[in-house]
Amino acid sequence: MSEPATLQFWYDFASPYSHIAAQIIEQKAAGLTVEWRPFLLGPIFKAQGWTDSPFNLYPAKGAYMMRDVARLCADLALPWRRPSSFPRHSVLAARVALQLPPHEIGRFSRAVFHANFAEDLDIAQEAVLMGLLRQLGLPLALLDEATAPEHKIQLRRATEEAQARSVFGAPFFLVGDEPFWGADRLDQAVAWARAQS
Amino acid sequence: MSEPATLQFWYDFASPYSHIAAQIIEQKAAGLTVEWRPFLLGPIFKAQGWTDSPFNLYPAKGAYMMRDVARLCADLALPWRRPSSFPRHSVLAARVALQLPPHEIGRFSRAVFHANFAEDLDIAQEAVLMGLLRQLGLPLALLDEATAPEHKIQLRRATEEAQARSVFGAPFFLVGDEPFWGADRLDQAVAWARAQS
Repeated sequence: MSEPATLQFWYDFASPYSHIAAQIIEQKAAGLTVEWRPFLLGPIFKAQGWTDSPFNLYPAKGAYMMRDVARLCADLALPWRRPSSFPRHSVLAARVALQLPPHEIGRFSRAVFHANFAEDLDIAQEAVLMGLLRQLGLPLALLDEATAPEHKIQLRRATEEAQARSVFGAPFFLVGDEPFWGADRLDQAVAWARAQS
Repeated sequence: MSEPATLQFWYDFASPYSHIAAQIIEQKAAGLTVEWRPFLLGPIFKAQGWTDSPFNLYPAKGAYMMRDVARLCADLALPWRRPSSFPRHSVLAARVALQLPPHEIGRFSRAVFHANFAEDLDIAQEAVLMGLLRQLGLPLALLDEATAPEHKIQLRRATEEAQARSVFGAPFFLVGDEPFWGADRLDQAVAWARAQS
């Protein structure tokens, strides 16, 4: 038998559709290797000339997105509370996440998304992330480490890699070079990965 | 028993995802009333500051879209040929479509989408549309009528209505005021409409 295929999962902690994908991906992708790849959408949007989330730049799209996400979460029985601030700064959470080993990054990431999109907590705040680390039994030192130069660079490189691989939104899935954009392409990405296994 | 609910289907003949929706909507929505609502995305994009299709303005997104649509069509066993020119001018086709009665507009629209996205024909050309009308046994006079002031106004009004109802992309489905954007929300829109019937 061949190795289980890898499903790369690229996400930004500020992205509502990434929240949905994060909460369901391990169950959907059972038997596959899921690679959790946090990155920042900001620099990628900026390179396309956007200085804010497209959901803020285009209000009709933003209003629709909030309705769509609420409806999807209801269908999936996922908790959802419309964030009182959007998008939240995801840099610190992403720098913490990138320090975690493969078997911990998923658990931490789901908790961050839950804080942002089910509890309406500001994930840009150290206190919020500290609470999550404590709750998950993870070392609080990860938070101090997050601002060390090597971890800043790590996130910058992840974002550069995303851009180089034409990741233009989130969530984004890659199976080898095959691209899938959006939580609504997760099933298709999983099927593609299984076909390679 | 109550009346079958109405599913409004807003589309632009230049939109690849509208092609997908058009080819499958009658089957998916069996038992519901489908209202075919051609409109123009151009003025709506322009109002958001876009002077071209976002798939041309954002090349990574455009390349992905072409791959995504090819994959979706393969899964659905729909014919697909990447159009050699994109987006094609859809004004004339839309003006013809708007003159057709409810029982004919779907058939004509599917044929236009097929020409654009399965045969790579330029649907902006009178000769192409004439060929389709002939093939479908529809009056060729529809084509002359298309440039009459009242039919120009009809399309302008349809586009204004779309904009007023926050239709910001295509395909777009409305069940009453409940909005669904994208071919991948068709199932959800149909389920919503059935729940109202």
